[in-house]
Amino acid sequence: MRIGILGTGVVGQTIATKLVELGHEVTMGARSAGSEKAAEWAAAAGEGASEGSFADAAAHGELLFNCTAGIASLDALRAAGEEELRGKVLVDVANPLDFSHGMPPTLSVCNDDSLGEQIQRAFPDTRVVKALNTISAPVMIDPIDGTNLFICGDDEAAKQEVVELLAGFGWPADSVVDLGGIEAARGTEMYLALWLRLMGAQGTPQFNIAVVR
Amino acid sequence: MRIGILGTGVVGQTIATKLVELGHEVTMGARSAGSEKAAEWAAAAGEGASEGSFADAAAHGELLFNCTAGIASLDALRAAGEEELRGKVLVDVANPLDFSHGMPPTLSVCNDDSLGEQIQRAFPDTRVVKALNTISAPVMIDPIDGTNLFICGDDEAAKQEVVELLAGFGWPADSVVDLGGIEAARGTEMYLALWLRLMGAQGTPQFNIAVVR
Repeated sequence: MRIGILGTGVVGQTIATKLVELGHEVTMGARSAGSEKAAEWAAAAGEGASEGSFADAAAHGELLFNCTAGIASLDALRAAGEEELRGKVLVDVANPLDFSHGMPPTLSVCNDDSLGEQIQRAFPDTRVVKALNTISAPVMIDPIDGTNLFICGDDEAAKQEVVELLAGFGWPADSVVDLGGIEAARGTEMYLALWLRLMGAQGTPQFNIAVVR
Repeated sequence: MRIGILGTGVVGQTIATKLVELGHEVTMGARSAGSEKAAEWAAAAGEGASEGSFADAAAHGELLFNCTAGIASLDALRAAGEEELRGKVLVDVANPLDFSHGMPPTLSVCNDDSLGEQIQRAFPDTRVVKALNTISAPVMIDPIDGTNLFICGDDEAAKQEVVELLAGFGWPADSVVDLGGIEAARGTEMYLALWLRLMGAQGTPQFNIAVVR
């Protein structure tokens, strides 16, 4: 399918490359068309890969991934354009990390709201699915056996579509924990506060958690 | 050893009963001595179990557990008395859950501070160790194989003492993840936002997470 990736960082590049490998037609969008990182990625990824502005990527995609920095996501999505986002599934991979107060970062929104909810409110006709934001980029496309992927969103069909797409990344259906509506993004985003300290304690971001009963 | 339990709820009762079973002398403290719940617990738990005020429990214990509701913990600890807490290890099991805005609860402190840090700042001569706050009471004393216990605190010897005590609860040393100083309480407390939604999705609080690399 045609997929738009908003963001040119490690997360965007990792997901975009995997999607091209899976045979999808992927446009990576940056603040403006012709960005060095997006152009280098498109050249390296080869057939099926292209680059453009946020609006170009959004217009191209039947399904979109928000891989921008969480603190800049709303601006990036506004730049993509409400019309281009309308009716589409938007997989929100971003976390609202705020590095301005030092390390580890805090969240720019949490507790009684979340980035996922902010995006859903700002773009009510877009089908926001929060997913993949609890793991580092390499783990997103190379899941650790037995661990879980957490998703949430208000649109059941959109969640199902995302689960099927991510099965191609290596996430079996029984690894997916559906936490409910987009309000549950508070849970997966606030987990970052623990994730960051687990990364510090272990000295690596290459881990995930398994829910065990 | 002599242990003081602050709080008479399910968490306090579960931990206190386990400690009596392990041969410790346990005093459960409530807002005032002679509370119905603490007296019933002490009668049922038998030899080694007693009850009193927060100050009685703190005076009794060489080591203390804070099992009060997080939103009331600072008041309970002030009632216990700074002198009675001085120099002692205080295992802080509480989460600052605020139910006043409906379900699931929010946190009364998070992101750039935590209850664990508030307690350590309020009682600088007490050796605060945050532990057990990421699991429900039955799981605290009956760990699920392969899952992890997260601890943090500024006093290394205090953490070691707590790890040895909790080994008696069934937590092997290699299940314990030391997240560092008490500042990491932000991580384990904010994880509650995910824990609450995992409980909702699964329909049970009897679970834990395993960190997998």
